[in-house]
Amino acid sequence: MTDDPSRRTCLAIVLAAGEGTRMRSDTPKVLHRVAARSMLAHALDAVRAAGADRIAVVVGPGREDVAEAARRVVPDASVFVQAERLGTAHAVLAARAALAQPADDVVVAYADTPLVEAETFARLRAPLAEGAAVTVLGFEAADPTGYGRVLRDGETVRAIREHRDANDAERAVTLCNAGLMALSGSDALSLLDAIGNENAKGEYYLTDAVEIARARGRTVACVVAPEWEVQGVNDRVQLAHVERTLQERLRERAMRAGVTMVDPESVFLAHDTVLGRDVVLEPSIVFGPGVVVESGATIHAFSHLEGARIAAGASVGPFARLRPGADIGKGAKVGNFVEVKKAKVGAGAKLPHLSYVGDAEIGAKANLGAGTITCNYDGFDKHLTRVGEGAFVGSNSSLVAPVTVGAGAFVGSGSVVTQDVPADALALARGRQAVKDGWAVRFRAEKAEAKAAKAENEAKASTSDDA
Amino acid sequence: MTDDPSRRTCLAIVLAAGEGTRMRSDTPKVLHRVAARSMLAHALDAVRAAGADRIAVVVGPGREDVAEAARRVVPDASVFVQAERLGTAHAVLAARAALAQPADDVVVAYADTPLVEAETFARLRAPLAEGAAVTVLGFEAADPTGYGRVLRDGETVRAIREHRDANDAERAVTLCNAGLMALSGSDALSLLDAIGNENAKGEYYLTDAVEIARARGRTVACVVAPEWEVQGVNDRVQLAHVERTLQERLRERAMRAGVTMVDPESVFLAHDTVLGRDVVLEPSIVFGPGVVVESGATIHAFSHLEGARIAAGASVGPFARLRPGADIGKGAKVGNFVEVKKAKVGAGAKLPHLSYVGDAEIGAKANLGAGTITCNYDGFDKHLTRVGEGAFVGSNSSLVAPVTVGAGAFVGSGSVVTQDVPADALALARGRQAVKDGWAVRFRAEKAEAKAAKAENEAKASTSDDA
Amino acid sequence: MTDDPSRRTCLAIVLAAGEGTRMRSDTPKVLHRVAARSMLAHALDAVRAAGADRIAVVVGPGREDVAEAARRVVPDASVFVQAERLGTAHAVLAARAALAQPADDVVVAYADTPLVEAETFARLRAPLAEGAAVTVLGFEAADPTGYGRVLRDGETVRAIREHRDANDAERAVTLCNAGLMALSGSDALSLLDAIGNENAKGEYYLTDAVEIARARGRTVACVVAPEWEVQGVNDRVQLAHVERTLQERLRERAMRAGVTMVDPESVFLAHDTVLGRDVVLEPSIVFGPGVVVESGATIHAFSHLEGARIAAGASVGPFARLRPGADIGKGAKVGNFVEVKKAKVGAGAKLPHLSYVGDAEIGAKANLGAGTITCNYDGFDKHLTRVGEGAFVGSNSSLVAPVTVGAGAFVGSGSVVTQDVPADALALARGRQAVKDGWAVRFRAEKAEAKAAKAENEAKASTSDDA
Repeated sequence: MTDDPSRRTCLAIVLAAGEGTRMRSDTPKVLHRVAARSMLAHALDAVRAAGADRIAVVVGPGREDVAEAARRVVPDASVFVQAERLGTAHAVLAARAALAQPADDVVVAYADTPLVEAETFARLRAPLAEGAAVTVLGFEAADPTGYGRVLRDGETVRAIREHRDANDAERAVTLCNAGLMALSGSDALSLLDAIGNENAKGEYYLTDAVEIARARGRTVACVVAPEWEVQGVNDRVQLAHVERTLQERLRERAMRAGVTMVDPESVFLAHDTVLGRDVVLEPSIVFGPGVVVESGATIHAFSHLEGARIAAGASVGPFARLRPGADIGKGAKVGNFVEVKKAKVGAGAKLPHLSYVGDAEIGAKANLGAGTITCNYDGFDKHLTRVGEGAFVGSNSSLVAPVTVGAGAFVGSGSVVTQDVPADALALARGRQAVKDGWAVRFRAEKAEAKAAKAENEAKASTSDDA
Repeated sequence: MTDDPSRRTCLAIVLAAGEGTRMRSDTPKVLHRVAARSMLAHALDAVRAAGADRIAVVVGPGREDVAEAARRVVPDASVFVQAERLGTAHAVLAARAALAQPADDVVVAYADTPLVEAETFARLRAPLAEGAAVTVLGFEAADPTGYGRVLRDGETVRAIREHRDANDAERAVTLCNAGLMALSGSDALSLLDAIGNENAKGEYYLTDAVEIARARGRTVACVVAPEWEVQGVNDRVQLAHVERTLQERLRERAMRAGVTMVDPESVFLAHDTVLGRDVVLEPSIVFGPGVVVESGATIHAFSHLEGARIAAGASVGPFARLRPGADIGKGAKVGNFVEVKKAKVGAGAKLPHLSYVGDAEIGAKANLGAGTITCNYDGFDKHLTRVGEGAFVGSNSSLVAPVTVGAGAFVGSGSVVTQDVPADALALARGRQAVKDGWAVRFRAEKAEAKAAKAENEAKASTSDDA
Repeated sequence: MTDDPSRRTCLAIVLAAGEGTRMRSDTPKVLHRVAARSMLAHALDAVRAAGADRIAVVVGPGREDVAEAARRVVPDASVFVQAERLGTAHAVLAARAALAQPADDVVVAYADTPLVEAETFARLRAPLAEGAAVTVLGFEAADPTGYGRVLRDGETVRAIREHRDANDAERAVTLCNAGLMALSGSDALSLLDAIGNENAKGEYYLTDAVEIARARGRTVACVVAPEWEVQGVNDRVQLAHVERTLQERLRERAMRAGVTMVDPESVFLAHDTVLGRDVVLEPSIVFGPGVVVESGATIHAFSHLEGARIAAGASVGPFARLRPGADIGKGAKVGNFVEVKKAKVGAGAKLPHLSYVGDAEIGAKANLGAGTITCNYDGFDKHLTRVGEGAFVGSNSSLVAPVTVGAGAFVGSGSVVTQDVPADALALARGRQAVKDGWAVRFRAEKAEAKAAKAENEAKASTSDDA
């Protein structure tokens, strides 16, 4: 053991066994998403970033889906099953095997409290390096009713008093217990094993570790976080609250870094959205995971982006959809009603309107007319479309992949291009125009006649009905 | 008469004669919509659901449009015209013929107060079964200034005191009169006829029924509703407030039932939207009337739905528009920039991009390439397009209805299909590709030359201007 | 000089030299936009509308971009450069040459305080006509901490006390100094020149003019504005606040004038948006500058409009994009996934779905089928498309400009129209349909075979890897 916090080892136990009945969902509660990432992943990332070198996840019985999701984020996480639901201390002790291995610090996190930041977990660990047996996480509650109060003597915690057991003076305390905790690694098992279940519900409460440590003459510390950070999620209304809280933070961080948001409240960011300086976001933009927007790019209103890179100075939208693998070059333009998927769009290229560009490489300064579609799928396989630098594809053309339009080539409007077009050539692949003079006059007359006949028949039918 | 509330008869009088000048609209105020239904319809539905077996609607002179709208919701509603505008009691008495027929209870509702719930009207009726002559609807006002105060002795109402007539103690009362009322059917006409117009405006006020009933030694009860429920609408700012209030309630109800809303505030629900468990709604979705979304379906951002059914597990959007008659099968996919109208889309079928599918039957697991369009209209009539199970329609194809693409058939990209395609066949209907080598080089040269010539001409013209 | 305010001359000095470091932007702070217009333009327009007949703009060194932007709004604005950054009085004195010319009133405005209304500037000038030497603009601060307090004797200002210098009684004052000021033209230079820089930062503060005027026995007046109006912008979070404040005001003004907004908070207006009576705006609409919507038109959700005129009773969207020059006729319909640019759309014409109409004239009652595209660009020049009155263009057609479809003519679905179509004629320009029976059976078999062969090869490769 060391008292240099940065060198102390740390086991994080992430509790993810809650049933989440009030979510009314077939998806386990902790796999519901906030800012396009599961709550579980938020918790795992935060404890890892706070220095946890071992992570144990406690899941409910049969929840292999939760275990797998945890391993996707932290491949070497150890997973424990809490077979029965007997309280938070009982849940932590499901990870007994992990607790049995030496660790300087033990941090207990909840997978349904996804906003707690890494820095808060790090602060929670700090008092342990100075000899505390336990650190509790407190928050100043706007309305403390119902919460356990953190009673302190100076800096150290005297007790945590449940609301129902508190006297008036204690109820006036607004510092409340968030439930998260750090324990000294050498004391953790002994404290946890000392927790009993002599209470109304017959459950083992993690909070009791405070009283036990105090009874042993040990120090219990308290670290305070803002209330928004310790919000838990038990139903979808709370899920929406947590989403909104996180969005507000992500947006403000982006704006302070030099991003213009005309209407911040209508911009939805993913946890990992990267936005450069002088990026302008118009109202109503949704970011899925994995988007990078470089400096000076503009994303116009009503755009939906996921797994895309937008280079400096590019213009996207309004009404654009970028799907994974969209790689939009410097100063390129993706306009309205355009979908781009797994396609590299060269610098200065233009896809202004009503296009689908998938599995493609569009050369620099190429121009795809309105309605251009890459026909990338034959019902079984996807194929590549290449459009060379400076090529011009006329409107409403279909590029049937695999196909290449050479650099500087032209494709006539409305063409169905099935064979490669050499550089600088013109390709036409459309029907010849035929005109039938006066046809519309006859057509209208026929239609009018048919309509009159129909009306007459109906009148007859109606008459015979009456008869 | 009976004191079993469920067997008592009830006449509801819905006042819909207000001019609504402050709406500044050519549409009568009560026909403005909240959650995609007129305020009048909200009021009519609420009183009907509260057990009204007869409904009278009082409209302004010449407002046949309001009368018709009422009859569309309640076909046997009786409509009365308030010829002059002489106060609320006068408006109620316009329905004298309805009041003259026996009823146990009479409920007075306002068509411009659309959020009052059926259960509130039912609560309003309850005291009548126990002998009250009148029940008033009260609400606790956040700011009672300007409202009439409900003064009570224990449970019964002593008086309603207008703000201007109230003393300081009375002004401290925050229970205010919402204006809605229930009257004992056997007393109603007698009470209403006793109301005079000796007041500043010379109008007949329904509220005076309280004082008259008290003077006759009768009980006046008060039922309390939350303030949001009794919001009235006099201008479009208030209309927007009422819309927002109702939306918040509809959203919360859906979330509590197991619907995920990433950004609840950007989801607009209709009064009758049905959302199954584990439905996920991304931000920015607008529901018109008549939409049913089954469990586990996902509606992606920027979607607009009306009169559509989406089966379990289907995926809609982003940027999808479903119009009336869109019937999306189990696990089917309607992607971006796709419009579906009056079309059955089979289970597992895919309409991923840039398509219009109208008047159509798309078989299970069929796949329509990007840009597929059903040409359903010939300028006069609409025709049906059928695409068989497992068929594959290449991108940018036009299906000219009436036409059938058989099961398992393929249509080549860019085809204009005007004749039926047999099952398992391939149809191609597009031009042959021709290539003119080097054409673009010459074209660019010509353009450059033309540009130079134009510049030269302009220079000359400018010189001669100077001269 | 005159004391008739409407005849007094006025010099407005607009300070636009701030560096705006906290914006973290390559764009000068005052060129960031609110309601689709730069903050600078807002300030310039307000002082001009308040009667300023001369306008001087003070910019930072090298900020020719700001100077140009100012001249675009006020062509005869005089521009001065503040070479060093030595305080607000120093900035005003950069315009010494303008101050040297006679003016009855001098108004000092800040280009980063864009919400101050013309009427407020006019009120600021009024006391000067009655003999005041200076008028300061005050506001009642919700939280006055940090602001200079306006200390008054009755109507006149005694002093402005900086927060750090204020005693407890003075700190209790909530009337704060917004910084904007009007000065008597005959006193302005003398007052400004008397301002010293003996303070902690060594800067020249405009506020000191108050004390100097008082010391000279002159009257200093105070005009009070609401706090929202004097919000300044120093970073993008504040920019978003100012945007939201202005949007709320623009929306409320529109609603009170008879516009329905289903969800006002999702409608973004430009400073110059004109909306007629009974216009209905669904949720999520973005207005760029220069849009006029006439009475009774409906803009459906998810629409984006800029520089467009929409005539009475027209219907636009959902998912419509109108770009500059879109001129939508009476009762015309622009539907979903439709872009219109520089095009006149006749009365009753329909562009219902998936179209691009650019550089075009569409006749009254013409109907463009889904997917119709005007191919207006040949890679070098834009050309015109004309569709005559009552013409019907079949779905998925390409109109290759320059081209005319005559009145009453029909174009067959999927046609590529390259030559003019006479009135009442039918044009077809598409491939002939060919069918290969049983092709799909063979194609599927080939694909299955290829897949099996690939799997076998991979199995072999994997075996040899193992070896």
